[in-house]
Amino acid sequence: MRKKVVLAYSGGLDTSFCIPYLTIEKGMEVHTVLANTGGFSEKEIKQLEIKAKTMGAVSHQTLDIQSVYYEKCLRYLIFGNVLKNNTYPLSVSSERAFQAISVARYAKEMKADAIAHGCTGAGNDQIRFDYILRVFAPDINILAPIREGKFSREEEVAYLQSKGFPVSFKTSQYSINQGIWGTSVGGAETLRATDELPEEAFPTQRTKEGTETITLGFEKGEPVSVNGITMHPIDVIKSLYRIAGPYGIGRDIHVGDTLVGLKGRVGFEAAAPLLIIKAHHLLEKHVLGKWQMYWKDQLAQWYGMMLHEAQYPDPVMRHIERFLEDTQHRVTGTVSIRLRPYTFSVTGCSSPFDLMDARFGDYGEGTEAFTAEHVEGFVRLLSLPVHMYMSKEKEYHEP
Amino acid sequence: MRKKVVLAYSGGLDTSFCIPYLTIEKGMEVHTVLANTGGFSEKEIKQLEIKAKTMGAVSHQTLDIQSVYYEKCLRYLIFGNVLKNNTYPLSVSSERAFQAISVARYAKEMKADAIAHGCTGAGNDQIRFDYILRVFAPDINILAPIREGKFSREEEVAYLQSKGFPVSFKTSQYSINQGIWGTSVGGAETLRATDELPEEAFPTQRTKEGTETITLGFEKGEPVSVNGITMHPIDVIKSLYRIAGPYGIGRDIHVGDTLVGLKGRVGFEAAAPLLIIKAHHLLEKHVLGKWQMYWKDQLAQWYGMMLHEAQYPDPVMRHIERFLEDTQHRVTGTVSIRLRPYTFSVTGCSSPFDLMDARFGDYGEGTEAFTAEHVEGFVRLLSLPVHMYMSKEKEYHEP
Amino acid sequence: MRKKVVLAYSGGLDTSFCIPYLTIEKGMEVHTVLANTGGFSEKEIKQLEIKAKTMGAVSHQTLDIQSVYYEKCLRYLIFGNVLKNNTYPLSVSSERAFQAISVARYAKEMKADAIAHGCTGAGNDQIRFDYILRVFAPDINILAPIREGKFSREEEVAYLQSKGFPVSFKTSQYSINQGIWGTSVGGAETLRATDELPEEAFPTQRTKEGTETITLGFEKGEPVSVNGITMHPIDVIKSLYRIAGPYGIGRDIHVGDTLVGLKGRVGFEAAAPLLIIKAHHLLEKHVLGKWQMYWKDQLAQWYGMMLHEAQYPDPVMRHIERFLEDTQHRVTGTVSIRLRPYTFSVTGCSSPFDLMDARFGDYGEGTEAFTAEHVEGFVRLLSLPVHMYMSKEKEYHEP
Amino acid sequence: MRKKVVLAYSGGLDTSFCIPYLTIEKGMEVHTVLANTGGFSEKEIKQLEIKAKTMGAVSHQTLDIQSVYYEKCLRYLIFGNVLKNNTYPLSVSSERAFQAISVARYAKEMKADAIAHGCTGAGNDQIRFDYILRVFAPDINILAPIREGKFSREEEVAYLQSKGFPVSFKTSQYSINQGIWGTSVGGAETLRATDELPEEAFPTQRTKEGTETITLGFEKGEPVSVNGITMHPIDVIKSLYRIAGPYGIGRDIHVGDTLVGLKGRVGFEAAAPLLIIKAHHLLEKHVLGKWQMYWKDQLAQWYGMMLHEAQYPDPVMRHIERFLEDTQHRVTGTVSIRLRPYTFSVTGCSSPFDLMDARFGDYGEGTEAFTAEHVEGFVRLLSLPVHMYMSKEKEYHEP
Repeated sequence: MRKKVVLAYSGGLDTSFCIPYLTIEKGMEVHTVLANTGGFSEKEIKQLEIKAKTMGAVSHQTLDIQSVYYEKCLRYLIFGNVLKNNTYPLSVSSERAFQAISVARYAKEMKADAIAHGCTGAGNDQIRFDYILRVFAPDINILAPIREGKFSREEEVAYLQSKGFPVSFKTSQYSINQGIWGTSVGGAETLRATDELPEEAFPTQRTKEGTETITLGFEKGEPVSVNGITMHPIDVIKSLYRIAGPYGIGRDIHVGDTLVGLKGRVGFEAAAPLLIIKAHHLLEKHVLGKWQMYWKDQLAQWYGMMLHEAQYPDPVMRHIERFLEDTQHRVTGTVSIRLRPYTFSVTGCSSPFDLMDARFGDYGEGTEAFTAEHVEGFVRLLSLPVHMYMSKEKEYHEP
Repeated sequence: MRKKVVLAYSGGLDTSFCIPYLTIEKGMEVHTVLANTGGFSEKEIKQLEIKAKTMGAVSHQTLDIQSVYYEKCLRYLIFGNVLKNNTYPLSVSSERAFQAISVARYAKEMKADAIAHGCTGAGNDQIRFDYILRVFAPDINILAPIREGKFSREEEVAYLQSKGFPVSFKTSQYSINQGIWGTSVGGAETLRATDELPEEAFPTQRTKEGTETITLGFEKGEPVSVNGITMHPIDVIKSLYRIAGPYGIGRDIHVGDTLVGLKGRVGFEAAAPLLIIKAHHLLEKHVLGKWQMYWKDQLAQWYGMMLHEAQYPDPVMRHIERFLEDTQHRVTGTVSIRLRPYTFSVTGCSSPFDLMDARFGDYGEGTEAFTAEHVEGFVRLLSLPVHMYMSKEKEYHEP
Repeated sequence: MRKKVVLAYSGGLDTSFCIPYLTIEKGMEVHTVLANTGGFSEKEIKQLEIKAKTMGAVSHQTLDIQSVYYEKCLRYLIFGNVLKNNTYPLSVSSERAFQAISVARYAKEMKADAIAHGCTGAGNDQIRFDYILRVFAPDINILAPIREGKFSREEEVAYLQSKGFPVSFKTSQYSINQGIWGTSVGGAETLRATDELPEEAFPTQRTKEGTETITLGFEKGEPVSVNGITMHPIDVIKSLYRIAGPYGIGRDIHVGDTLVGLKGRVGFEAAAPLLIIKAHHLLEKHVLGKWQMYWKDQLAQWYGMMLHEAQYPDPVMRHIERFLEDTQHRVTGTVSIRLRPYTFSVTGCSSPFDLMDARFGDYGEGTEAFTAEHVEGFVRLLSLPVHMYMSKEKEYHEP
Repeated sequence: MRKKVVLAYSGGLDTSFCIPYLTIEKGMEVHTVLANTGGFSEKEIKQLEIKAKTMGAVSHQTLDIQSVYYEKCLRYLIFGNVLKNNTYPLSVSSERAFQAISVARYAKEMKADAIAHGCTGAGNDQIRFDYILRVFAPDINILAPIREGKFSREEEVAYLQSKGFPVSFKTSQYSINQGIWGTSVGGAETLRATDELPEEAFPTQRTKEGTETITLGFEKGEPVSVNGITMHPIDVIKSLYRIAGPYGIGRDIHVGDTLVGLKGRVGFEAAAPLLIIKAHHLLEKHVLGKWQMYWKDQLAQWYGMMLHEAQYPDPVMRHIERFLEDTQHRVTGTVSIRLRPYTFSVTGCSSPFDLMDARFGDYGEGTEAFTAEHVEGFVRLLSLPVHMYMSKEKEYHEP
């Protein structure tokens, strides 16, 4: 009896190659599975299924994990305003864990002998897949045919042609990876440090000019409305892509340390995540206190780093999620955003919990909350430790 | 004999009012001093001196502290990529400590009986001045006539008119505070949470269209050239204002906790700081390692917070400066920036210390630095702690 | 009608003085209240009531807040292994917030015009009381007669004698402050940096010799049994004092920054907190992962600092509590402790969640969890970033 | 021509086995090298050389790295008060990096074809050696014969006997690892979680009774005298072992995460490190400010973690060293310590930089540094943010 392998399938060249390769060369029964985090439309999902079967998959399954991905991950990235290196919303890296977890579970249900993925031997995704699979399906073998065989894209095409498969894979200069939390664009310019990606490299072309103002509503930290229309957070995200994408908003390049220890550079477009995070952050500045902000940042930065580095299942991540969630009770209100070509600004907000209100006097004007004498006392005690410290030795360390 | 008071003078209504007020009402001999951090031109400095004397100052002194301000402060803000709340380069707040220190020293030289400043009783600057003066001139009295008398701007104007002074103070809607590290714009819209500042509120009007690319050179973390022309960092800053200001770049609104415990909101324009910090950060992503970046961020965020909150003389600040300086040995190279109306992007960089080079193989391609087997071993051990942890209790905390 | 004042009463000289002073000199109706966090026995509570009335209190109320203090505070100090400066379990400082909150609530119920406390003007407790009262009873006046009148203890005694009160206050060299989480001992030697407290300064005298082993049981982080006998955590604490106190265990001196900016030094004895925290910490080392421990420490250290500094009501504290609580699900098991004169050691533990078990092979022996090849791959990738970094510039920064 | 291998030699069974094994089975020319960090006496060094040659080493070299180990490592562990998990001074783990670096350099000088070490495949030391060797001698092969051959101690003894070598290796229950910063004791009880090590397991037996007071002098953070006699820090360490070791001071058990992802447990005795660190810490509490202490702790805890985990050459470590060193300018003074069986207490200190002095008034007494009114103003502003926060929504999050 042939061994049963579950293959994480994306429809691209690498994973398409794996179907006949595993079937013919390894003598396995290949069951493909697509874990959709929101990067695929209904039409694309249908096409993918046909393609998988054409390439020889015995069965194909689509797992819709948008909702679990939002609930268990994106929500916390929003709560934490997570931008890696102040730039990158973890557009692709955050998806991998959830794809791998759902694939691991599907493989267990299928009583598979092996799980295969199409990762090469150089990037981050192999670590993310392997790590999660080791933890969630420790008893099932992991296969990574491209990595193991060191196949080039040219070799993969040649193999498919030699086996009589119609090869329609565009040999684009850029490797595009689309998900609900952004689209990565790698290749050509991103392989060097010096150059920017040209306009045409981005899937979403800039077609809008001028300026436009939108409002984004939040409830307990979650985005729940656009321009006053209430909708599910996933639909908020999709709506923002439609509105802001054509301004060319949310494009940037991420440079960072890869999981295999090298430096990597990748372009991305992520209009919705950027808009949501910046608007959410503004609202928080109005409703949260200083130390809430400080510790949220510490934990969220760490959360993003570990998520990026495949360590989503580490138990500390659950505790951070509890912390972040607990900070969001008052993060409710509406934020205005002005869109412009290539950029946007968050222009204001209103919230029932805004701490910048009139009760304690306006900032910049006389206030009833304290007097000049109170200020004198405050400064007296506030400065006392440094006053004492400096009185001890005038010469050293005087700024 | 009249008591001698040194008055920190800025030429504005508040400090101008203080000259006759202290002279006439308090019977003091008023010596004005301007601590220029780069916000005043030669011409303005001259005019200020005349104005001070006209108002009754016995002497006037201008202290040029641009260089010490850069060397002891701005340098570290650049090294640390300091943006408070990921937004605000501390445009005004960082100057105050240096102005206060130089005023304290001048007052000691002058053997003054008192030091006066024009701060009101609601804002941050009173804390910054009082704190520094308490520490650097603990034996000299501090006077804050506006705060103590709770004078409104209207009352000040009326007083000056009643004493026969020509009052030419524009009653602008906005309070503008210009320094070398940016210009703050407060008033009207910033007193509420909901609105953005109108175009005309900003001192630098947008006049450039289209796009333009510039290069910015760094040596050991300091900005040393623009478009290939070597210059002093202070001149780099001034040059960037001239080039990028007319695009409307660097405008934003800062919302944060004030030193007196309230929430405050203030607009600013800071083209040069934003360009320098984002370019510097990009260069660091290429030449520094993961934990260098992580700890730099921690310490720099703290440094910015304490600087903002008047605590520049705290001894921990000196240790953080040592740390930050030590991280900059390799932060040398050139960064390209594309300017556009209201925005810019850092498009690439080159550095002899770029860690993203070919020696260990290109990211995204096969590499000689390690094999598929190495990756397998890496993941095996990397995932072991979580694997063990999850094996202990499947039910709880499984993501 | 006389104004009604609620006085936080401890039975000591300072607060006893306040009763006639407020009654006679200020013409107020004094209602005393004792907020007992566990430092007073039933007998002492009775005596206190009699004393208060003898001194002229119109009414006296005892509030038993042991349970709320444990549930809302001590629990988290245990979860976080909180020892300020690695030494001090916050024996006294942690109580003050809860006493102040209960007094504020009682004063509101009583519709009091004022709340009085007996703090002097030099220490931390005045800040703790004032801070909490400002926040929890902002509309009620705060009186601090000792601070305001700058009365010395001698003056207080003289005043009481002059008014005909029997003064039986021992003029001890040491100020003793007893609570359930430890007893502070201040005075004489602690006013200087050089000397240790003598044996006789400690309320609990050392009477036991030799050595003894006990076991302490935890469930989800809370101490629930001693020597196998299940009991309420508050009883665990009391039981440990009885068993370990006579060894002279848990004595130390805390040196730290006071809330008014000075350095302070105070002795304490805290056998139960030290035993519980060290045992709890050992158990955690066995059942929690590396990053759980790391972030627990960060947050708990901060929690202890803010609690010590009166900022218990800051909202970030609630988030930290959620985090800490979430980490304790597996902190269940039994710890052995060996007691000796002046010291103890935690000697071992057992837990169903112990991660140091045989499943993945014994540490120090061959293991099935990985092979030599896995280790090679692990080190290869682990060292790659530093390898790359050092290859760039051999001279600089080579250790 | 035979390949030349440099073998890191400790005189124990594992590395002794490697000499004939590499010579005979691998046909290599074995050059042994001992990197002495202070764990070996002159006599032991001599014996080791003879032993190495007897086993067939072609040459033997002893490298005295005590001084470099102190200057580049122990100094910073003292500055940072580094105790892993508040317990373990990194007695053995901190040495490995320095041994490996010196071995790597020696192997380069010797133009060796390979470097061999005697680590097994289960512990931390293999990672530490491999990591450093990969970075410092990337072009030289690494051999780990015990790990690769999975030899048990019995097999090693049998092999040596079969080749005619006199085998005098005591088959102790415990594996003892002696260094200047402490001695680890592993085996038997430490393989389980439940038991303590018996008295006889510790190399230094307790022979002293009663109590004794000593003084320890520091200059800029380094220990420079014992009982008033000035000496080199390395001699301070050795002196403290002689004085305090016989009290049984400094014994404990370290439980932690190993580099290979498992939990490990190991006993140790480290009288000198514990005395120095606790005394140093006390002095710092008197001479440093709050935030200096806070950030020192953060960075030192991280430094210890990375050092323990082999990552000594990471560039962030150099920056942390600069920070820590910069904090020590005032850490000068004398600390008194009372020694007792199994324990000690730091009883007081004196320093010219002690911030707890009389200039600003005694803590606990009336003070001239501030008045009751100052305190009122201080609390008013300090509590304002929480006051505002709580005024917004009484129900939620009220403690």
